[in-house]
Amino acid sequence: MESNKASTDEETYRVRKLEITDKNKGFMELLQQLTVCGSVSDDEFQKRFEELRSYGDDHVICVIEDVSSSKIVATGSVFIEKKFIRGCGKVGHIEDVVVDSSARGLQLGKKVVSFLADHACLMGCYKVILDCSVDNKAFYEKCGFKEKEIQMVRYFI
Amino acid sequence: MESNKASTDEETYRVRKLEITDKNKGFMELLQQLTVCGSVSDDEFQKRFEELRSYGDDHVICVIEDVSSSKIVATGSVFIEKKFIRGCGKVGHIEDVVVDSSARGLQLGKKVVSFLADHACLMGCYKVILDCSVDNKAFYEKCGFKEKEIQMVRYFI
Repeated sequence: MESNKASTDEETYRVRKLEITDKNKGFMELLQQLTVCGSVSDDEFQKRFEELRSYGDDHVICVIEDVSSSKIVATGSVFIEKKFIRGCGKVGHIEDVVVDSSARGLQLGKKVVSFLADHACLMGCYKVILDCSVDNKAFYEKCGFKEKEIQMVRYFI
Repeated sequence: MESNKASTDEETYRVRKLEITDKNKGFMELLQQLTVCGSVSDDEFQKRFEELRSYGDDHVICVIEDVSSSKIVATGSVFIEKKFIRGCGKVGHIEDVVVDSSARGLQLGKKVVSFLADHACLMGCYKVILDCSVDNKAFYEKCGFKEKEIQMVRYFI
């Protein structure tokens, strides 16, 4: 209990944007808890990191670092879609939210989602959306989301 | 019947990417059949058009023009999200698909979705996704999609 209490301190868990050195802090291993990641070399990681950085505030990846272990324990991303509807409105799309299995129950997921939703709001989005499993619906409801439509998918590989 | 038969000809309905002059061909009025569009001035339209064009193949808007009337009768968009998961994979997101009420039943929606999904596939996406109402599920199933997750939304305005 004591350690959990301490671990919720902001000094223990730092919420920030992804940095290129996070590959050495377990970022890809964390994503592997979400889905298949395959093998990503340092060069491939750097190339994708630079591509995403070129989008500036239109594509942001949030991470939470456990500063005591220098390990990334939570992440999520948001990108800003620009539309013609709603007076040339913008929509934030939240993707790839995951919390390390060893750090669950500490509200870190909520912190990631808040960071991403706040960013979308600041960018002038009229809404932020995401797709999730039925099992995760209650979590997103606690983050202020409501169920709206159904997600359809077509796989190419 | 005769006119419907003729109107399915490729020469009558031209499938292509959005052009800046499409604002004068009823593009915004078509989007109004999908949702609230508000008032968009020529300057605002041009600015958004240029912003989206700067993304190149990473954000494509498909339109179908009825060449006999120079009217845009169907549209849909796709943007390519770049990820770290799935070996730095990419996902196509289809948005804002609508067919003019006077041109339904001519498979134009299917043509738009095929154009967008083919583009995502060519861009190397491992999947293409979209959100739709329960009422539109059967249409997307005919386009090769399957129901997967649920969409959650949080509105800011």
